Amino acid sequence: MRVVFVGAGNLATRLSLEMRKVGLEIGQVYSHTSEHAETLADALGCPWTTVAEEIIENADLYVFSLKDAVLQEVIGRVRPNRGLWVHTAGSMPISVFEGFAVRYGVIYPLQTFSKSREVDFRKIPFFLEANSPEDEIVLRDVAGLLSGNVRILSSEKRKSLHLAAVFACNFTNHIYALAGKILKERQIPEDVLLPLIDETAAKVHVMPPAKAQTGPAIRYDENVIDKHLAMLEDPDMRAIYERISRSIYKEAQHE
Amino acid sequence: MRVVFVGAGNLATRLSLEMRKVGLEIGQVYSHTSEHAETLADALGCPWTTVAEEIIENADLYVFSLKDAVLQEVIGRVRPNRGLWVHTAGSMPISVFEGFAVRYGVIYPLQTFSKSREVDFRKIPFFLEANSPEDEIVLRDVAGLLSGNVRILSSEKRKSLHLAAVFACNFTNHIYALAGKILKERQIPEDVLLPLIDETAAKVHVMPPAKAQTGPAIRYDENVIDKHLAMLEDPDMRAIYERISRSIYKEAQHE
Repeated sequence: MRVVFVGAGNLATRLSLEMRKVGLEIGQVYSHTSEHAETLADALGCPWTTVAEEIIENADLYVFSLKDAVLQEVIGRVRPNRGLWVHTAGSMPISVFEGFAVRYGVIYPLQTFSKSREVDFRKIPFFLEANSPEDEIVLRDVAGLLSGNVRILSSEKRKSLHLAAVFACNFTNHIYALAGKILKERQIPEDVLLPLIDETAAKVHVMPPAKAQTGPAIRYDENVIDKHLAMLEDPDMRAIYERISRSIYKEAQHE
Repeated sequence: MRVVFVGAGNLATRLSLEMRKVGLEIGQVYSHTSEHAETLADALGCPWTTVAEEIIENADLYVFSLKDAVLQEVIGRVRPNRGLWVHTAGSMPISVFEGFAVRYGVIYPLQTFSKSREVDFRKIPFFLEANSPEDEIVLRDVAGLLSGNVRILSSEKRKSLHLAAVFACNFTNHIYALAGKILKERQIPEDVLLPLIDETAAKVHVMPPAKAQTGPAIRYDENVIDKHLAMLEDPDMRAIYERISRSIYKEAQHE
């Protein structure tokens, strides 16, 4: 099976390298930015282009892994062919391919990717969608080479999944950043937080987060909360502290 | 060395059990609530009391592990003695013991504890403070039995550390809860988020959170963000989403 990657970002980089590792042939890489296209193509040992109209027509699978804002436009510029076209975007419906491809679908791996960091694909949940039962099977076969955790999910539900992932990953990571900032400003080494970060993540494997919740906000302990708010000079951090504390308290009242 | 635990909550439970495990004798447990005192004393095989004035006088170490709001009051009710009195509270200064004890200090383990969950103490960073160099050594010896990661930290810096921990643990855990809620409402199994949660935590061991940041907020992708806000019916969740997204964007501009 020959695969073309349309996009060369974090997800495209890790997914294409993993596909090659399990024996798929990567036929070409496209990116609007020549530097990105070349870097990934070099790593994969395949040709590259920055012109969407020059994407080869004889591949079996086309993986569109682009920012949502440009996905529709780039799809419209690729020459129609007999391959299976899929995108990897959480919030974009399968219907973006309508009128541009005959066979199409979605491969959505629920994970955070950075170009430089390898991740264990076997554990990544893959969510698939296709416009025909036959191509659903093709996508199941492809995803099954990569992961042991593959299921079919509608565009509507995938959108919710992406929203949940923004909380669980993007927001969590930013909260880590804010915690690190507090320590850095006071000359305390940031890595002292790592065992706490690890245990907080590990706990939700064995108990629901509502049960794992600890800290002053559960009972809205104003004693501690007011002290903390007074220590936060940045109004945005103060607003985040207050919003989340009130939300923790509200949820705890419902338990 | 004989230790008395004043308090029987999450931290007191895990710390006392660990102390017993490394060979310290737990002489007594106090809790205002007889059920809590009895449960922990049973697990430790020691006597218990609900009357602070009845706390024994011949122990070497008194660990006050109480809610901030009642700490000062309970300290005032314990009969003065020659033992070393310490508390375990992030946001309370060492000075709460002034006028009540001769020898005093703080043992602050930076971790989240639940009564029912064992944690690996060897990895927990312990932050100590004492009102004399001699007792600093005593506390170093005690903490050194429990953990390989022990240091001295002032009350002022400990307060910052506690604030950072509220972000890294309490807020992170609540963000997990909100993510789970989104999925539950749409009948998607919440455990699909676990590999993402694990990887998000694992990443910050090898790169700073600012570098690990992914997702639509970095470039404030209104396309995705507006869709997400429209999906959030709860005004508190919407406010949290917006606040954190703006903060991610702001930090990314500074990079």
